[in-house]
Amino acid sequence: MRDFLPEDVRRREYVIGIIKRVYERYGFEPLETPAVENLETLLGKYGDEGNRLIFKILKRGEHEATGQADLALRYDLTVPLARVVAQHQAKLPRLFKRYQIQPVWRADRPARGRFREFYQCDVDSLGSTSPVVEAELCAAVADAMIELGFGDFVIRINHRDLLTALLCAAGIDAPLHAVTLVALDKLDKVGPEGVAAELAERGVAADARTRLLSFFGVRADLQVGPDKDLERLEGLVGSDVSGRDACANLRAIVSLIAKTRAASRIRLDPSLARGLSYYTGAIMEVNVADLAGSLGGGGRYDNLVGMFSGQEIPACGFSLGLERILVVMSERGMFPPFLARSPADVLVAMFDASGAASAMRVADQLRASGLRVVVYPDADKIGKQIKYADGQRIPFVALLGDEEIKAGTVTVKDLATQTQQTYGQSAAGAAIVEALKRRG
Amino acid sequence: MRDFLPEDVRRREYVIGIIKRVYERYGFEPLETPAVENLETLLGKYGDEGNRLIFKILKRGEHEATGQADLALRYDLTVPLARVVAQHQAKLPRLFKRYQIQPVWRADRPARGRFREFYQCDVDSLGSTSPVVEAELCAAVADAMIELGFGDFVIRINHRDLLTALLCAAGIDAPLHAVTLVALDKLDKVGPEGVAAELAERGVAADARTRLLSFFGVRADLQVGPDKDLERLEGLVGSDVSGRDACANLRAIVSLIAKTRAASRIRLDPSLARGLSYYTGAIMEVNVADLAGSLGGGGRYDNLVGMFSGQEIPACGFSLGLERILVVMSERGMFPPFLARSPADVLVAMFDASGAASAMRVADQLRASGLRVVVYPDADKIGKQIKYADGQRIPFVALLGDEEIKAGTVTVKDLATQTQQTYGQSAAGAAIVEALKRRG
Repeated sequence: MRDFLPEDVRRREYVIGIIKRVYERYGFEPLETPAVENLETLLGKYGDEGNRLIFKILKRGEHEATGQADLALRYDLTVPLARVVAQHQAKLPRLFKRYQIQPVWRADRPARGRFREFYQCDVDSLGSTSPVVEAELCAAVADAMIELGFGDFVIRINHRDLLTALLCAAGIDAPLHAVTLVALDKLDKVGPEGVAAELAERGVAADARTRLLSFFGVRADLQVGPDKDLERLEGLVGSDVSGRDACANLRAIVSLIAKTRAASRIRLDPSLARGLSYYTGAIMEVNVADLAGSLGGGGRYDNLVGMFSGQEIPACGFSLGLERILVVMSERGMFPPFLARSPADVLVAMFDASGAASAMRVADQLRASGLRVVVYPDADKIGKQIKYADGQRIPFVALLGDEEIKAGTVTVKDLATQTQQTYGQSAAGAAIVEALKRRG
Repeated sequence: MRDFLPEDVRRREYVIGIIKRVYERYGFEPLETPAVENLETLLGKYGDEGNRLIFKILKRGEHEATGQADLALRYDLTVPLARVVAQHQAKLPRLFKRYQIQPVWRADRPARGRFREFYQCDVDSLGSTSPVVEAELCAAVADAMIELGFGDFVIRINHRDLLTALLCAAGIDAPLHAVTLVALDKLDKVGPEGVAAELAERGVAADARTRLLSFFGVRADLQVGPDKDLERLEGLVGSDVSGRDACANLRAIVSLIAKTRAASRIRLDPSLARGLSYYTGAIMEVNVADLAGSLGGGGRYDNLVGMFSGQEIPACGFSLGLERILVVMSERGMFPPFLARSPADVLVAMFDASGAASAMRVADQLRASGLRVVVYPDADKIGKQIKYADGQRIPFVALLGDEEIKAGTVTVKDLATQTQQTYGQSAAGAAIVEALKRRG
C-alpha cells in the first residue's frame, strides 16, 4: 500500500474527474459505501481464491483475544452495491444507475499496476435485462477512455452461456468446465500450446483439446468484426438453446453499440472468461496493447442482489482499475502539464517578526484576488526565501520591507524574468493575476 | 458505518470541494495515505483510550488462526502524516503544507454526528515553529467555515504550557494534572459544579479546586477579547517561565490573526484542553452553538515526527470533522438546491426493441451537447416511461416513434409545461440546453 504525494494525488483526481464527468453524462449517480463490511456479506461471493484474499478485522473488546473476526475490508464494489440495493430498495429508483469510485483491498502479492489497496471505478445499471444496458455501459467506458486520451483500446465481449455451449460442443464434460476456463484465461499469456498442455494435465482428452482450440482461432482475426464472428460461432454451438440465445443477445448488444462512439472498439472474443464467479450473461474487458491484463472489465450478474434480499434484480456493470490506467498514462506521458503545477502562485517573504502582521494582511488581499499564496513563516535571509520559492517553482515573491509597509505598497519579484515592480497593496493581486494569464 | 446514497454523496462532495479550494488558496497541497497502517505505527500515539478504539486486522495465511494482528485501520490523519514526513522527507519541501481529506475508523459508540467510519479534513504545516503557522491555519479554517455559509462560529485557542502553568498556580500537583484536564474538558457539558465534584472525587484539594475554577471564570466573558484575557492570565501564572512563554506565543498568534478574516472569530479559552496526547503548544477548537462538542480542532505537535525518524520536525495542524459539519448544515438547511438535482436532463423513451438503436444514437447526440441523458432500456408503455421520468424529476423526455425515426426527427416533451415540440435529431440538444438555461 502506498502514500500519494501531492503530484500523485493530482493525477489521480484528474483521472477520477474525467471518469465521473462521463458517467454523469449517462445518468449514473454517485454512491459510496463503507470500507468495512460484515465478513459474512463478503464470504462465498468471490470463489475460494477470493475468500483467501479478504482482509479480516478482529472483533473488539474481550473477543480480541480469541482471534475472532466479524468485519472485513471491502474486496470489490459490486458485492457492496448488491447489498445496498437489497437493503435500501425502497429509497432507490426502479432503474438504478450508479457509479462508485473507492478503494478496495486484497491480500494479494503486489505486481506492476497491482497493489493491496487499489481504487475501482465502477459503473452499474440495475433493474433491466435489456441489451441497452450492456451497450450503454460499453459506450460510457469507451467515452471515458477516449476523454482520458486513449486512442488504441479495444473492448472485448463474450457471454458466459456461449462459453459453456462451446465447451460442450468441443466435447468437454461439465465437471471439467471450471478448470478449462482457468486454462483458457491464460491464452493471451501462454499461447495455444501452453493452454493445450494445461488442458492435457487437467484430463481434457486430446480431440476435445484440439476442437476447443480451433474454436478460438477466431481470436487471431479479432478484426473481422463481430457480425461475421457471431455467424461462425452460431454454427459451432449448433442447436444448443442457451448458446444460441447467448449469440442473439451478443448480436443485439453489438448492433446497439454500433450507434455509439464505442462502435469501432468492440471485438467479439469467445475465449474471454473473466475470473469472478457471479457473472451470468455478457462479460466484457477493456485492453490496451502495452499492459498485460486488462484496464477493467465487467459483465451481467442477475443473481447477486437476490443473494441478499431473496428478490432477484437484474444487474450489469463495468469496473475500471484506476491504478492500471495511471500506470499506462504515466508510461505514455499522457498527463497534462498543469498537474505538475507549483503549490502556490506567490510567496510573501518575511523581513522580520515585526513585519509578520503586514505579511498576513497582504497575503489575505492577494488570496482575495484568487491567487494561491503562502507566507514564508520565518525571518530567514531574503535570498534564502527567494531560493526556496524558486525551488518550489513558485513564480512570484512579494517583498514587504519597512519602506513598503510605511508606504502601503508591496514589491513583486518575478522569478522567471528576474524583474520587480512595486504596487499599492490592494493592486498587486490583479497585476499578478494578469501576469499569470499572459504566461498561460 | 453508513452507505451514502446519491444526494448524500453530492452534499459530501460539495463540502469537501469548498474546503479543498480554500486550503489550496493557502498553498496547502493534497496528500493521501493508505487506509491501513502497521499496527505498531498507531499504538502508543493516542493514549490508552485511543489504543482500545483501533480496528486491528488479522495476519493473513497460517497466522490467521492465531488471532495475531499486524495491521490496523487509520485512526486519524496526523500520525500517518508524521510517518509520511519521516519516510519521504527527501522528496518533500522543507516547509511542507499539506491537506488530507480521508476516512478514519474508531471502534467507538456511535452518537449524533459521530460514526465508526468518518472523514477528517486535515490541514497541517511542517517545518516551522513560527506563530505565522498557527495564525494561517486559523485563517484558513475560518475562510472554509465562512465559505460553507457559517456566520456564527468561534475558534477557541489555548496553549498546553499555559494550562500546565495554571494547574500549578492553582496548587495542583503534577501527578493530578492528567485527571484534572479530563475533568476540565467537561466544563461545557457539566458546568463548574460538575467539574468540582469530579475533581473532589479524583483527590484534588478543596482550595485548589476553587482556585482553579476561578481562573476559568474568564470563559463567561469569552467576548472580552484575547488581549485583555492574556493580561489577566499572565498575572495568574506569575513567574512561571513556560507559562509566560505560552502567553507570549498566544499573544503573537492572536495579533497575526487580527490581520485576517478570522480576527473577529478568535477567543482565548484557558479551559480548552483537547484530548490527544501528542500536542505540545497552542491548541485550537472551532465551535458553533448548536452542536455540543466541536466541528474540529488541532494544535502544535513538535515531537511526533521525531517518534518515527529520530529527527524532530516542528508541526501544527487543524482537523475539521466532515460528518459534524454535515449534521449542522443539514439541520440548518444550508445546502444549495442544485445538490438535490435529478439524475439526468433527458430520458430517451423506448417505443419497441427495433427502435433501440435509434434511441442510442439520439442519446449520443444529446450527450454531445453536454446534456445528461438516460435511455429507458425496456419497451414499456410510453405513459409508464414518462411517469418514471417524472418520478425521477427528469425534466425532458425524447420520443422516437416510427415517424420520427423515418424523418430523422425527435419529439421533445417538456414535463413541466406538458408541451412538446419536434426537432431535427441534431438540433434537439441545443434546444434543450437553451430551455434548461432559461429555467435557471
